[in-house]
Amino acid sequence: MSHAPSAVLENRHRIIRAALSAQSLDAVILTSLPNILYLTNFTGSTAIAIITASRIHFLTDFRYVTAIADSVGTTHECPELELRKVEGSYDATLAEVLASIAASSGGQAAMRMGFEAAHLTVSRHTWLLDALGRGGSTPALVATEGLVEQARVRKDDYEINTLREAARRLSRVAEQIVAAVTAGQSERDLALVIDQQIRLAGFSKPAFDTIVAAGPNSALPHARPGERRLTEGDLVVLDFGGVYDSYCVDLTRTVSVGRASTRARDVYAAVLEAHDQAIAAVGPGRSRFDIDAAARDTLARYGLGEAFGHGTGHGLGIEVHEDPRISRRRPDVDSQDASVDSGMVFTIEPGAYLPGWGGVRIEDDVLVTDAGVEVLTDVSTDLIEV
Amino acid sequence: MSHAPSAVLENRHRIIRAALSAQSLDAVILTSLPNILYLTNFTGSTAIAIITASRIHFLTDFRYVTAIADSVGTTHECPELELRKVEGSYDATLAEVLASIAASSGGQAAMRMGFEAAHLTVSRHTWLLDALGRGGSTPALVATEGLVEQARVRKDDYEINTLREAARRLSRVAEQIVAAVTAGQSERDLALVIDQQIRLAGFSKPAFDTIVAAGPNSALPHARPGERRLTEGDLVVLDFGGVYDSYCVDLTRTVSVGRASTRARDVYAAVLEAHDQAIAAVGPGRSRFDIDAAARDTLARYGLGEAFGHGTGHGLGIEVHEDPRISRRRPDVDSQDASVDSGMVFTIEPGAYLPGWGGVRIEDDVLVTDAGVEVLTDVSTDLIEV
Repeated sequence: MSHAPSAVLENRHRIIRAALSAQSLDAVILTSLPNILYLTNFTGSTAIAIITASRIHFLTDFRYVTAIADSVGTTHECPELELRKVEGSYDATLAEVLASIAASSGGQAAMRMGFEAAHLTVSRHTWLLDALGRGGSTPALVATEGLVEQARVRKDDYEINTLREAARRLSRVAEQIVAAVTAGQSERDLALVIDQQIRLAGFSKPAFDTIVAAGPNSALPHARPGERRLTEGDLVVLDFGGVYDSYCVDLTRTVSVGRASTRARDVYAAVLEAHDQAIAAVGPGRSRFDIDAAARDTLARYGLGEAFGHGTGHGLGIEVHEDPRISRRRPDVDSQDASVDSGMVFTIEPGAYLPGWGGVRIEDDVLVTDAGVEVLTDVSTDLIEV
Repeated sequence: MSHAPSAVLENRHRIIRAALSAQSLDAVILTSLPNILYLTNFTGSTAIAIITASRIHFLTDFRYVTAIADSVGTTHECPELELRKVEGSYDATLAEVLASIAASSGGQAAMRMGFEAAHLTVSRHTWLLDALGRGGSTPALVATEGLVEQARVRKDDYEINTLREAARRLSRVAEQIVAAVTAGQSERDLALVIDQQIRLAGFSKPAFDTIVAAGPNSALPHARPGERRLTEGDLVVLDFGGVYDSYCVDLTRTVSVGRASTRARDVYAAVLEAHDQAIAAVGPGRSRFDIDAAARDTLARYGLGEAFGHGTGHGLGIEVHEDPRISRRRPDVDSQDASVDSGMVFTIEPGAYLPGWGGVRIEDDVLVTDAGVEVLTDVSTDLIEV
């Protein structure tokens, strides 16, 4: 179980129920685990939750029943949770629970049950429609999009405190690591040291596969650590993150093995300026496309526009990649509403990648505040030569 | 990139194309990453593949373009792969590629394009239908189930060799770990040591979150390692796995801290007998429900039927949980066809969990052979007292 206090969960439930009400839904079926964790503190690998106006029907199996029982009476118990132990298949149990909710609603018109269209496969949806159709009282299944994600994008105080502490701890790991980088180490060995330090710093695990990319490999934004040994003249991109009490933080520094060449210094300076400009563009009401442009335009001024192939940042929270996406507008999918707001937490991580030569990325985690921006990570951005 | 030789990939393509033909499909859109890896050696985090009779249209973004280019000309290059770099959204690019495939097919009747219903969300499916509807030539989208999974369930020689080597390495890790367990260690510290050893043994990462569950925690089949220190009289369940060249193996041993009580010995002996009986029940043509029953009935004879709440095993391969499921028949979802066949690889992992007291689980990985069964893991199953 995660540790959001019961009152925090209650507040989140209120927000979701208001959204249900606004969409004339009687309930919503949650199949996204991060969304379920957000609303119940459940950290297991399989569950379904159904939020009605007064209850959270919670389906999980024997593996997690004890953990839920143990949370009862604690300060982080999920209010109004009604546990249903799944003995056979989850979807068959879900169909039963939905039918019984519909039946217990009395003679009212068919209930409208939302489901998470982005977190239910076509297979499961088809199966569920069939199963409900075979039953007597048939609730209508209504596709919803982002019902819980919309709430998650603005972090509450509990989350902000957790992310702040996580970022503080990850920053100390970064300092240790940068100090420990030495020529001759393999990428793989250095990645192992990083993962070890992340765990020792109190994280439950790395938030993603740690990246250590040296020399020409540093031109691959998502390289996997391999057998290459750190060599005089290499730029080394170190990108790692950790999960702390269910929340993810993410940090990148690029170091030089030995004295950096003039070109390496120039590229580093350009990426750092892009990083600083993007952070300066963060504030409540600012457009995420403009934050991205602040980084991108800076790099373009140094002739590195083409060398920056990814977005400037991504939201952090229960997932390591969540909203808001700090990137160029994609005309085919992005709507108009693009402003970031206080309580949002995301990375700022511009980079420049020159195939065959190498790359630089500098990444910090920021929180949008009423006053502007708070940088949660706290490590020097100077180019370190080791 | 993973390392299946090109000829192995070609053979897999032949099997999938035969399945397409049998279902009168012109193509299939693959959105499951494990299925994509199986057919292309791609190990990145985002891609879509479309298999037609003569081509593999492959959609990925700038992060992975270099890795694919680098594989060209190697012994593990994916044949007939036509790369399409995604610049905007994946689904918009997919819609374009599908439309161009349909257009290039000439004046024939509407193409039938399969999609993976278990790996496409309702959101994406709805979006794709809309996007194709807006275009000129509209291919029909046809739900498919398990098209690639059916092929994956029987491992080919390349996979068997990889899994055998992985299991051999994981067995050596298990021996080191069992020898290193000492009273006073915290679960968390021991889990860290295990993860470190897994990486040092050549695995790219743990296959899942390592379980170290001591004393009463060992009664929770999926406990997370915590601050509890290993104490005289504890049973300690150690469950860990690794990913080796993209393939997952999984192993559990239970040790006693200090001299095991009579009850601990009895429970251990019952679980071991269940484990041995289940392995003895493995062979080509045997029912997976019968293999499960061999373990379950044994535990029931010792009064531990209720204490064994999970299935006896799960398939191993590119995913750590895949088919076949070795479990009780679930009347609501399981079909009749339940026999295991040679080339299948799965775990055998019965356990007994007594709330408040503790638990025992013993897990090995087995391969079904023409002759019967080969146990891939190779570690003593004696109760070790440390």
